[in-house]
Amino acid sequence: MTTYSLLILPGDGIGPEVMAEVRKVIGWFQQNRGLSFDVSEDLVGGAAYDKHGKPLADETMAKAQAVDAVLLGAVGGPKYDDLDFSVKPERGLLRLRKEMDLFANLRPAQCFDALADFSSLKREVVAGLDILIVRELTSGVYFGEPRGISADDTPGNEGGRVGVNTQRYTSGEIRRVARSAFELARKRGNRVCSMEKANVMESGILWREEVQWVHDNEYPDVELSHMYADNGAMQLVRNPRQFDVIVTDNLFGDILSDAAAMLTGSLGMLPSASLGAPMENGRPKALYEPVHGSAPDIAGQGKANPIACILSFAMCLRYSFGLGAEADLLEKAVEKVLADGVRTGDLMGAEGGKPVSTAEMGDHIVAAL
Amino acid sequence: MTTYSLLILPGDGIGPEVMAEVRKVIGWFQQNRGLSFDVSEDLVGGAAYDKHGKPLADETMAKAQAVDAVLLGAVGGPKYDDLDFSVKPERGLLRLRKEMDLFANLRPAQCFDALADFSSLKREVVAGLDILIVRELTSGVYFGEPRGISADDTPGNEGGRVGVNTQRYTSGEIRRVARSAFELARKRGNRVCSMEKANVMESGILWREEVQWVHDNEYPDVELSHMYADNGAMQLVRNPRQFDVIVTDNLFGDILSDAAAMLTGSLGMLPSASLGAPMENGRPKALYEPVHGSAPDIAGQGKANPIACILSFAMCLRYSFGLGAEADLLEKAVEKVLADGVRTGDLMGAEGGKPVSTAEMGDHIVAAL
Ligand SMILES: CC(C)[C@H](C(=O)O)[C@@H](O)C(=O)O
Ligand SMILES: CC(C)[C@H](C(=O)O)[C@@H](O)C(=O)O
Repeated sequence: MTTYSLLILPGDGIGPEVMAEVRKVIGWFQQNRGLSFDVSEDLVGGAAYDKHGKPLADETMAKAQAVDAVLLGAVGGPKYDDLDFSVKPERGLLRLRKEMDLFANLRPAQCFDALADFSSLKREVVAGLDILIVRELTSGVYFGEPRGISADDTPGNEGGRVGVNTQRYTSGEIRRVARSAFELARKRGNRVCSMEKANVMESGILWREEVQWVHDNEYPDVELSHMYADNGAMQLVRNPRQFDVIVTDNLFGDILSDAAAMLTGSLGMLPSASLGAPMENGRPKALYEPVHGSAPDIAGQGKANPIACILSFAMCLRYSFGLGAEADLLEKAVEKVLADGVRTGDLMGAEGGKPVSTAEMGDHIVAAL
Repeated sequence: MTTYSLLILPGDGIGPEVMAEVRKVIGWFQQNRGLSFDVSEDLVGGAAYDKHGKPLADETMAKAQAVDAVLLGAVGGPKYDDLDFSVKPERGLLRLRKEMDLFANLRPAQCFDALADFSSLKREVVAGLDILIVRELTSGVYFGEPRGISADDTPGNEGGRVGVNTQRYTSGEIRRVARSAFELARKRGNRVCSMEKANVMESGILWREEVQWVHDNEYPDVELSHMYADNGAMQLVRNPRQFDVIVTDNLFGDILSDAAAMLTGSLGMLPSASLGAPMENGRPKALYEPVHGSAPDIAGQGKANPIACILSFAMCLRYSFGLGAEADLLEKAVEKVLADGVRTGDLMGAEGGKPVSTAEMGDHIVAAL
């Protein structure tokens, strides 16, 4: 029997709470579906900083490289706001992404019918929304060199400083994430919209040309369009359902995927997957995490919604282990619980519902399985 | 009597049509308010390319430097899509911004009561919305060096290329736009929210520190907060009315201001001002333009909404000439016409209204004056 190895990194804030519910779900699949998971746990973010003085210990990094998949909760919190850039909680996450070479970040923005009224957008604009943003995750301005802050005395800036970051993309980096987007589109609506600022940035011109090249040479059957990222932001607000798959770079992806997530009105529901190249066993390097942050304001109070983290595990079943039926089952269980009116605080709306804690939500989902 | 010199650059697409209506408004102020304008006109964008082989002739640039204010329509169109980067219509606009050193781009996002139902957002989320985005316009990744596309043979990219752009901000560049934002906030809700990605970009750290410095040393009375730009995009969608003035860099500003504009649901209504340092006569260098683009699909058909361009002229009266009362008068006239149900095609909603052409809308506004 195959044993799937998982590294759980709960991180900070509500991370540990929501991850505890994922553990219940993992347990259910072990007991009832004959799946075998080898689960280990370690620290990341502020929690790792508190123990090791840095947001990701080298041993943790090595473990992450060795397992089939990493499940991450969330990182960060006000306690760490004044830390030096190099040891901020975020650096732990960025190191994982970079060293595991997780170049394709999949961020579905789905509007759950039972929750459509939570959106700040009109129901008729977002009901049934189902788009997938594929964000490049290991390059661009997040990692480009040179970077840093230095003294600068140019005219108008006497005695001042200058801050520099570099947006840098190679053909290879663009092509591989484009391939991910086209592959995913084929399993969905077969349409990809690529977003950049080719009207002002040369890196955007290269992005557009390389995405077009991959399309023309390898995926001519998929419908491809290009859009400037500013217009993309507008169109996401105006009529998000016009999109199927969106592919974009690291920084645009950060902003556009957050905007798209908020369109659904229920951030506590949204999972993400970050995938790299296939390992020897054929599985991609992979990290799964909810889109929401560490929510320090409600941490430790049993108020957090564990669904985003649980749905991230569903993505893990699907993308890391090819267990599509199991992933479907889990997603259906979540839908059923929502349809039954079970609600964590963030999901309590005008129509009421059954208010539950983080742990109770996890129990309901396990029961629905 | 003071004579105000204006350079009108109608540009491409609907630019000439909407600008013709601004001319009517200028005419009204000359005849009825004893104002004296010295108006000249020239080419920019694709129109300039067609004549000069480049999107802004040097003589036009010189004229723009010499006048009190530039009024611009819009640039670009499918006809110019395949032009080389260096002569694309956008480069004409970017050259104006850069050489006139128009560092502060003011983009109000206001939701007009009569039009709140056009928004894809719920009325209760956007009614009464009135935020002002102050975008840095002459630096950052739009202009930073090095930039370009070159051959690159690094592993994984054999035979490929690399595209590079540089995000670069000096203390001086950040401080001056921060001052603009604080000044404007004092005349409004007295609150500034600064947005960057200080968690991943050193240029964002410098941005945050310098904005804070200007606040602490020069504007301690204004309320200042900081937000990561991805969260900013979310918050704009979730609850835009939480903001008063937002200050951000060139690229984030491009995207966030477009998202904010679309929240209002009526892009055809939104003006912008781009301001530089004071000239010898005390007036700032200035360029005014609607937020909407050249809309080639409806160009030349009398369908365009001239209000954004007319309201840009209202901003010109206010910011270039200190004619606040005249600006108010013009804005009131626009409101009255809308309240009367006069509508160009883009503003025709479920409740109907009186459908008018571009020219008729201009006439109605002049009549309301
Ligand atoms: C926490 C932060 C470094 C991160 C990013 O900017 O990528 C986050 O915003 C995300 O989108 O996962
Ligand atoms: C036309 C384009 C170059 C421009 C920009 O990117 O700044 C536009 O999108 C804007 O916001 O004024």
